[in-house]
Amino acid sequence: MSFHRMWTELLPVGRSSASGGYRRFAWTGADAECRAWFREQAESRGLAYEADRNGNQWAWLGDPAAGDAVVTGSHLDSVPDGGAFDGPLGVVSSFAALDELRGRGARFTKPLAVVNFGDEEGARFGLACVGSRLTAGHLTVEQAHRLTDADGVTLPKAMEAAGYDPEAIGPDPERLARIGAFVELHVEQGRALDLTGDAVGVAGAIWPHGRWRFDFRGEANHAGTTRLVDRHDPMLSYAETVLAARREAALAGAVATFGKIAVEPNGVNAIPSLVRGWLDSRAADQPTLDTVVTGIEKAAREYAAAHGVDLDVVRESFTPVVEFDHALRDELARILGRDGGDDRGIRVPVLGTGAGHDAGILSASIPTAMLFVRNPTGVSHSPAEFAAEDDCVAGVRALADVLEGLACT
Amino acid sequence: MSFHRMWTELLPVGRSSASGGYRRFAWTGADAECRAWFREQAESRGLAYEADRNGNQWAWLGDPAAGDAVVTGSHLDSVPDGGAFDGPLGVVSSFAALDELRGRGARFTKPLAVVNFGDEEGARFGLACVGSRLTAGHLTVEQAHRLTDADGVTLPKAMEAAGYDPEAIGPDPERLARIGAFVELHVEQGRALDLTGDAVGVAGAIWPHGRWRFDFRGEANHAGTTRLVDRHDPMLSYAETVLAARREAALAGAVATFGKIAVEPNGVNAIPSLVRGWLDSRAADQPTLDTVVTGIEKAAREYAAAHGVDLDVVRESFTPVVEFDHALRDELARILGRDGGDDRGIRVPVLGTGAGHDAGILSASIPTAMLFVRNPTGVSHSPAEFAAEDDCVAGVRALADVLEGLACT
Repeated sequence: MSFHRMWTELLPVGRSSASGGYRRFAWTGADAECRAWFREQAESRGLAYEADRNGNQWAWLGDPAAGDAVVTGSHLDSVPDGGAFDGPLGVVSSFAALDELRGRGARFTKPLAVVNFGDEEGARFGLACVGSRLTAGHLTVEQAHRLTDADGVTLPKAMEAAGYDPEAIGPDPERLARIGAFVELHVEQGRALDLTGDAVGVAGAIWPHGRWRFDFRGEANHAGTTRLVDRHDPMLSYAETVLAARREAALAGAVATFGKIAVEPNGVNAIPSLVRGWLDSRAADQPTLDTVVTGIEKAAREYAAAHGVDLDVVRESFTPVVEFDHALRDELARILGRDGGDDRGIRVPVLGTGAGHDAGILSASIPTAMLFVRNPTGVSHSPAEFAAEDDCVAGVRALADVLEGLACT
Repeated sequence: MSFHRMWTELLPVGRSSASGGYRRFAWTGADAECRAWFREQAESRGLAYEADRNGNQWAWLGDPAAGDAVVTGSHLDSVPDGGAFDGPLGVVSSFAALDELRGRGARFTKPLAVVNFGDEEGARFGLACVGSRLTAGHLTVEQAHRLTDADGVTLPKAMEAAGYDPEAIGPDPERLARIGAFVELHVEQGRALDLTGDAVGVAGAIWPHGRWRFDFRGEANHAGTTRLVDRHDPMLSYAETVLAARREAALAGAVATFGKIAVEPNGVNAIPSLVRGWLDSRAADQPTLDTVVTGIEKAAREYAAAHGVDLDVVRESFTPVVEFDHALRDELARILGRDGGDDRGIRVPVLGTGAGHDAGILSASIPTAMLFVRNPTGVSHSPAEFAAEDDCVAGVRALADVLEGLACT
């Protein structure tokens, strides 16, 4: 099945007709459709399909137990009203690259697998990369069991409803020990490749990043009858903190965003009792990120105190800087850029990125690398996310070259 | 049935065990329980029960067609996580006042009714006083049919599901023509009576007030990978506008509140595409309110333009200043303050209020008046809303005195 046909098959799954964006949240019906699609792709190619204890899906060519396997893939879930490319481009390209290698008559000397990691975006339970974090032991079973969605459904209940056994989840070091290299292809989430004029790039590092929850607790009261001086309005402290986050990030050359909010009671004529805002912040290095977040929290505490509002700040997740394996990165650059009479040699810029990925999580356990495909708008996590089909095909060819170089004679 | 027993019976209905607040939204199950309670109270007293075309409930003593009726009552619905008193205190006190008059052996010369107006708070469909607005012809049938809740359920569908005929709704001038005076008792939503040391007061005027929806539309994008300079983040313009609202209100001696917000896609790692904030603003007079809202909107437009964000401002509702009927107000003060050997004479301060009420809506059609009962915290629209039982009983006695003065020989 061609890249185009696979891509077209997946396009309608979990797409909102209202927004044009995707709502493929972990362990929902749309997620189940994506998973069924993955399994069909595996089985139609004669690959050995398995879902691991954490719900990640694998499609194996060759014997997994042989060791030193080359694995490629990404994820199929989405952020709320996300785009079509973030995740699915990597999974579809992985199957397409395998097809291309078979078409080339490649002889595999190592086992090869395509993987779909579960719940990468964290849209439902608020924590990104749950599937790979569990597998790598970066998230404990106890922590995972406490994850709860906005409707009060816990992760175990959600997995159970989707037909998975939540009692089985946990670290999977034996599975990771079989893998010699993991390569994730992903749509670029910025404009670096567009600016350099290249279709494909290689990842250098992932910025350290984290999520912090700011709970501003004031006093609910009537918006029409409560004098301004009698108010403890947490919306004011929240608003001041949103602006402080922008200032601190700009000063440091970092990014900081309040993109999610929950307000109680959220009534037009009620001063809120609670404004809960989530801060996402990232920077090129750890000291810079610390400076930004410390500055925002300090400002928020001053604002809250001035309004007689209580503030709790909770770090919900954190991922340190990820330097991808240098040897593997150099090997990818060598394979893609080779110029000895092979007309497929391309220029491959090395890019940093502010986005987290399963490849980043796994890089602490096994050699990982990433390929990026040009996104001319730079827009991501939005229906406007885009990659031209020619660039997608260039991405498939690059991934096939990489897999051939790593897994074939 | 005593005030205390009626009050205790209603207390658990629609109360959230999580927040301790009430969620008695129009045409929901909790609302139906309140309505069933009202009907039981009517029928157990031998009053003629009816629900009018707009879903307001009436309990009649005497012949409604006789004309010049004296009506008292309030509403039983609540804001999200509201208190126990706002609305129910008026309805319960009305039945208790009728009981007291019967106990006094009062002889009624005019028909008397207790009323429960539907959907006063507007918590579900975003417009306050729907029942009285429809009856008074201040809301057209077409407008009412377009009202939609957060789940996309329209008002007609909601009414139908609750067993009412949405095709019947509309102005009810004949019903209003039968009423000679409407008196609404309500918990005070400020601290004026606490400051003056009085248990009961009379309303002078309701401040003009309105609700405006601010839609800030930016561009959804990845919070980790989008440079600050490339962003069109509507959360920033919203935050600036929240602070501008506070400044403008403080300058004018008015109130302005952003208490409700809806964000899309509302993901931690997504710059929002839409931040929708609702402004509630009120002032002692119309020119002041105009100045405040014009100032906020002007500031919001500047902020939005600076961030490359689109802004739509829609006035969702507006109620001009309401001066309660002076003759009726003076009559109430005379009845309550009489000092010719009657030891029930009390001091009755006349209060302005920033809160809207069904009495305010009806005052354009019929003579209306309001009694307020002291709320020592001044807190309202919150579980902390409170009135001492002694003050509630004083309120019942005052209401009984007023009804006796207006409807009995």
